[in-house]
Amino acid sequence: MKLAALLTSAGVNTAVCVVLFSLYSVLRKQPSFVNVYFGAKIAQVRARQQDAFRFDRFVPSPSWILKAWETSDEEISATGGLDAVVFVRMIVFSFRIFSIAAIVCNFLVLPLNYFGKEMQRHQIPAETLEVFTIVNVEEGSRWLWAHCFALYLISCCACFLLYLEYKSISRMRLAYFTSSVSNPSYFTVLVRAIPWSRQESYSGTVTRFFTNFYASSYLSHQIVYRSGSVQKLVTDAGKMCKMLKLTPRELHCGSSSMRCGLCGTTASFSMLPMEAETDKGRSDFDGSDLRKKESAAALVFFRNRYAALVASQGLQSRNPMSWVTDLSPEPDDMYWSNICVPYRLLWIRKIAILVASMALVAFFIVPVSLTQGLVHLDKLQKTFPFLRGILQRKAMSQLATGYLPSVVLIIFMYMVPPIMLLFSTMEGSISRSDRKRSACIKVLCFFIWNVFFGNILSGSVIERFSKFFKDVKNLLAMAVPSTATFFMTYVLTSGWASLSCELMQPFGLLCNLFYRFVLRNKDVSTYGTLTFPYHTEVPRILLFGLFGFVYSTLSPLILPFLLVYLSLAYLVYRNQILNVYVTKYQTGGTYWPIVHNTTIFSMVLMQIIAMAVFGLKKSTVASSFVIPLIILTLLFNEYCRQRFQPLFKHIPAQILIEMDRQDEQNGKMKEIHQKLTSAYTQFKSSSLMLGDPVPPSHNNCRLEDLEINPGKIPVHHPS
Amino acid sequence: MKLAALLTSAGVNTAVCVVLFSLYSVLRKQPSFVNVYFGAKIAQVRARQQDAFRFDRFVPSPSWILKAWETSDEEISATGGLDAVVFVRMIVFSFRIFSIAAIVCNFLVLPLNYFGKEMQRHQIPAETLEVFTIVNVEEGSRWLWAHCFALYLISCCACFLLYLEYKSISRMRLAYFTSSVSNPSYFTVLVRAIPWSRQESYSGTVTRFFTNFYASSYLSHQIVYRSGSVQKLVTDAGKMCKMLKLTPRELHCGSSSMRCGLCGTTASFSMLPMEAETDKGRSDFDGSDLRKKESAAALVFFRNRYAALVASQGLQSRNPMSWVTDLSPEPDDMYWSNICVPYRLLWIRKIAILVASMALVAFFIVPVSLTQGLVHLDKLQKTFPFLRGILQRKAMSQLATGYLPSVVLIIFMYMVPPIMLLFSTMEGSISRSDRKRSACIKVLCFFIWNVFFGNILSGSVIERFSKFFKDVKNLLAMAVPSTATFFMTYVLTSGWASLSCELMQPFGLLCNLFYRFVLRNKDVSTYGTLTFPYHTEVPRILLFGLFGFVYSTLSPLILPFLLVYLSLAYLVYRNQILNVYVTKYQTGGTYWPIVHNTTIFSMVLMQIIAMAVFGLKKSTVASSFVIPLIILTLLFNEYCRQRFQPLFKHIPAQILIEMDRQDEQNGKMKEIHQKLTSAYTQFKSSSLMLGDPVPPSHNNCRLEDLEINPGKIPVHHPS
Repeated sequence: MKLAALLTSAGVNTAVCVVLFSLYSVLRKQPSFVNVYFGAKIAQVRARQQDAFRFDRFVPSPSWILKAWETSDEEISATGGLDAVVFVRMIVFSFRIFSIAAIVCNFLVLPLNYFGKEMQRHQIPAETLEVFTIVNVEEGSRWLWAHCFALYLISCCACFLLYLEYKSISRMRLAYFTSSVSNPSYFTVLVRAIPWSRQESYSGTVTRFFTNFYASSYLSHQIVYRSGSVQKLVTDAGKMCKMLKLTPRELHCGSSSMRCGLCGTTASFSMLPMEAETDKGRSDFDGSDLRKKESAAALVFFRNRYAALVASQGLQSRNPMSWVTDLSPEPDDMYWSNICVPYRLLWIRKIAILVASMALVAFFIVPVSLTQGLVHLDKLQKTFPFLRGILQRKAMSQLATGYLPSVVLIIFMYMVPPIMLLFSTMEGSISRSDRKRSACIKVLCFFIWNVFFGNILSGSVIERFSKFFKDVKNLLAMAVPSTATFFMTYVLTSGWASLSCELMQPFGLLCNLFYRFVLRNKDVSTYGTLTFPYHTEVPRILLFGLFGFVYSTLSPLILPFLLVYLSLAYLVYRNQILNVYVTKYQTGGTYWPIVHNTTIFSMVLMQIIAMAVFGLKKSTVASSFVIPLIILTLLFNEYCRQRFQPLFKHIPAQILIEMDRQDEQNGKMKEIHQKLTSAYTQFKSSSLMLGDPVPPSHNNCRLEDLEINPGKIPVHHPS
Repeated sequence: MKLAALLTSAGVNTAVCVVLFSLYSVLRKQPSFVNVYFGAKIAQVRARQQDAFRFDRFVPSPSWILKAWETSDEEISATGGLDAVVFVRMIVFSFRIFSIAAIVCNFLVLPLNYFGKEMQRHQIPAETLEVFTIVNVEEGSRWLWAHCFALYLISCCACFLLYLEYKSISRMRLAYFTSSVSNPSYFTVLVRAIPWSRQESYSGTVTRFFTNFYASSYLSHQIVYRSGSVQKLVTDAGKMCKMLKLTPRELHCGSSSMRCGLCGTTASFSMLPMEAETDKGRSDFDGSDLRKKESAAALVFFRNRYAALVASQGLQSRNPMSWVTDLSPEPDDMYWSNICVPYRLLWIRKIAILVASMALVAFFIVPVSLTQGLVHLDKLQKTFPFLRGILQRKAMSQLATGYLPSVVLIIFMYMVPPIMLLFSTMEGSISRSDRKRSACIKVLCFFIWNVFFGNILSGSVIERFSKFFKDVKNLLAMAVPSTATFFMTYVLTSGWASLSCELMQPFGLLCNLFYRFVLRNKDVSTYGTLTFPYHTEVPRILLFGLFGFVYSTLSPLILPFLLVYLSLAYLVYRNQILNVYVTKYQTGGTYWPIVHNTTIFSMVLMQIIAMAVFGLKKSTVASSFVIPLIILTLLFNEYCRQRFQPLFKHIPAQILIEMDRQDEQNGKMKEIHQKLTSAYTQFKSSSLMLGDPVPPSHNNCRLEDLEINPGKIPVHHPS
């Protein structure tokens, strides 16, 4: 690939991005799309739909960029929770380290690469891109020391920045613990595998056990019911209610905002008796029917946070497979149907899912390499001679080589996150946040293996090197620099395009249009709000980080494109966090250890590949000089694991004891206890589960208000 | 190797064993060796040395065998603790499963092997041993199904027996918890990494922290002092005292038992003020000197067991690297010098030791293969032509091939357990039992890798197959059956010999003789008592178990020899536990998970090798029929891990709460609290640390009493 071609591609992509971003800035001002682009705010306030035609609605404006830029971390934290802050910090960290790398490598390494070998020079735009990579450095050149120096510098800076980030995020996590004072989950222990007895109901067994062993701190408990029939009843009732509610609205309410607001209130009001009934059924109705539906799990409430923490730790009874206790997730975070799964089956589920996801990750390389095979049509024709007739037509051939591979790959790639999310569900996570986090790790493994290694090993190697090199080390050293161009275009196309896509929300937009023009249903709130898809976005950014690290010293031209991507990502994701996604639940920043570990992995991979490349360039001293760097990086990782990681797994006892004391001194404890017992409701009606708005607090809030004063909007705390 | 040769070897070994066992039965009756063969009892009672010459002292007798056979598990448990019971159960389990395997394989598989191929028959004694292995079965033979059936049968029986053992040992462990009522370690939490402050001593910081957060349950604490100068002073004083004590004894006491008993009393009396002084120094002397010696660790005593358990779990403070809490080991089990190691250095020590021991395990194969190379002298001569001259002399050649390899190997093998124990010490284990357990795992890995795989991969493969097979699977399938003969003789020589060696205690015997005839020192109690060397004996038995499993279906002739070994081991080790070794500390049965996991590993290895062998014999159906068995075995292991393993890591809260209640109802709590503060003494005098006898309780107990009524001897509970 020539440099000019790359720059052309960059130009095209930039133009597409600018167009789409402008389009977004127009679309977001259209009242009819407000639920697509302002989901988070709709969840808080039901905005008045203003249909008045104004000219400035159709002028692209950069106001959203300014707002996304100006918003402080505190506001992000208030809107999106600690997870959102961690996500933004991840982008900021990547931006920082890659800007350092870009400066060092483009001013030190790039010229050395360019002038590395005596060769016929073209005009710079006509040079092939290989001239700018380490491939162009002569064997045994003394200039390889510069690459080695750059490697050391980048590694040290990355470790330093990682340490600072880990430290500040740990501090934020500690603050997150102390700030969530009214969080009922700190008082609650989820008990699973309650032993079955013939004489007593599960509820009786729980009472007996906890009054016996935790007499001083046990408050009350709430049995978890098997979903299934009870759930189905409630869901059906909810649907009925919704159908009844929709028809009068269409008839009477029209599009007047005031009525609409009232309708919303009425709707949620009409749901309330239903909920109360379920509640009543749970608490009073200890008769025959519900007892049969009891599952072997319960939520046990304690008098203070520390007692709950203590009860959640360690082994409770003589049989490790009964009375399994964990700190309960937050009410909105509970994954009720998984809690009912018998505990004794969980281990076998986990193994099955582990095997299944490993199989998916490993065998996905088959379609990837098949699509890669399409690029090398001539080889394919040799292998399957019957294809020759079809492929000799020019249009067919162009389609096959130009479009099909990427289309097939993208379709496959979009299928994976939902599958992984399904796997994580079947694994038996007790909370939604945990499920998403587990899916995030699976998707990350998938991306790294299939996109990075898959392309390196199948694409270029099959083509050029398989006959010459059998050694894995040499293979990496040869294949990695030569695939730099591919990943550069990957950053340009997949990265930038995915950001535009994220901003435009095509799925939401299509749903909206479908509802409005096909179903002729003007109330589009049924589309619901989304939570931030950490399980696809975290792996994506980390994958680009992997590209950045690996290619920083080998082919530094990738870095400017990456920096542009990261700065766009910063703006886009902040905007999305503020406006689009709703934060119903969060993990409390536990995505950071994933980010940290992946970054360390990327760095070690960068170092190993650099070592292999130096070896291939016959500079054994520089090559062996990298070994201490690898060891130091691994030791640094181990130190961080010791120093910070425990905070992301356990809650320090000290903090909870201090919180308990404060509440007792303030006399707030009684109030918390009262709220506690009604905090967890297992059976919500289906419409509420789909993300229906919380009953509005400000009915007359206008769309303009939303845009101008984002900070003043009441923050939605999960109560 | 011919069958006759094997039988001859077995005969020779049997004769040697019989001679040594008889010699032992004579030697143990000699009063002068009483401290070699009755260490455990000497530790309890100081026996009267009876020098009267009697004829029956020199007649071999099987009385010890009878006694070892008759002793019940309860007595073993009382003398050797739960660990000894686990050790005996391990031998019993191995005996059971291999007797089943021996019956099945020798009556079903062995005839099939023998009549497998049409070949020229010799008289049975003249047949080569290969005729009895699976090598003799024809390719594609339908009789391989019998091997497959045997495999299934052995695996199922092994899983069933393993399950029963795990279950009964878990129950014993629970009983062990409840039985050790007066154990001070349940009330004690070891706190490390106490944060340093300029204003306060560590002692003050501990008081402030625990009175703040554990006000209701905190009792007192005891700072751990840096060993070094304090330790040195006490040791020196102890040595001085001992020298003073030895001279008068030799002059005045002679060999009269009463005086000796008194001497013992005097000696320990003369130590007492010293200890009291140290105690006093610790508790009262909070002045300048000792404060400087305070290390950042302390033992914190709590009012009840449950409070200590709670304080030992989870994260205490905001910084995971400070206030690290663990349940304390028992007083005799404390490894004081490791507790003083700064906690922040521990992780790096652990990594260094991990790397070092992996390197040792991996590179030890070099001397092993070198000694194996000696066996194949002709090859060696080709590689190093200068050796030819030396090696052509016949005596030299015989020495080199016959003796050197095994001598070198044995010397190397005896060096490894002490090195591993040293590694475990440097790793920073806080207790002696933990250190031994960790060394046990290291030695086990070492044995399995170097003895089993080392011999298979280096010995036979280099010789025969390296040119023909590169595939690991085929390599295993070819190499494993062909090394059966080697391991058969290994069981005969190394196994049986090691048992005789264990029984004779050559090291103790030599020390004893050296003291008496070279140093002319009649008081040989300074040789001290030993604790059971679990870290060498557990791996040894497990290694033989590995041989048994792997060769049971391939070459079943190994099984009878193994059964003889196991039954001898049963008698010998029970005798040693009862008479020789002292139980100062124990892990409470946590060796069983190691045994269980290794057995599962051996079984899976057996199945994989059998699968490979079936594949090689062109019986793909039988080969693929093994796959479900492997999966089922692994699932069984996972189930056991879920069901039982947590009990071997944590103490159930339920048990401790119940114990606390009982003690409170009985009013024993106060008494326990009083004992608690004096339970842990960091600085003992050196003579006591070397395993000097506990002050005698029965002075007039005679040696005969010891032999006849072993059950009546007061059990030495670590107080």
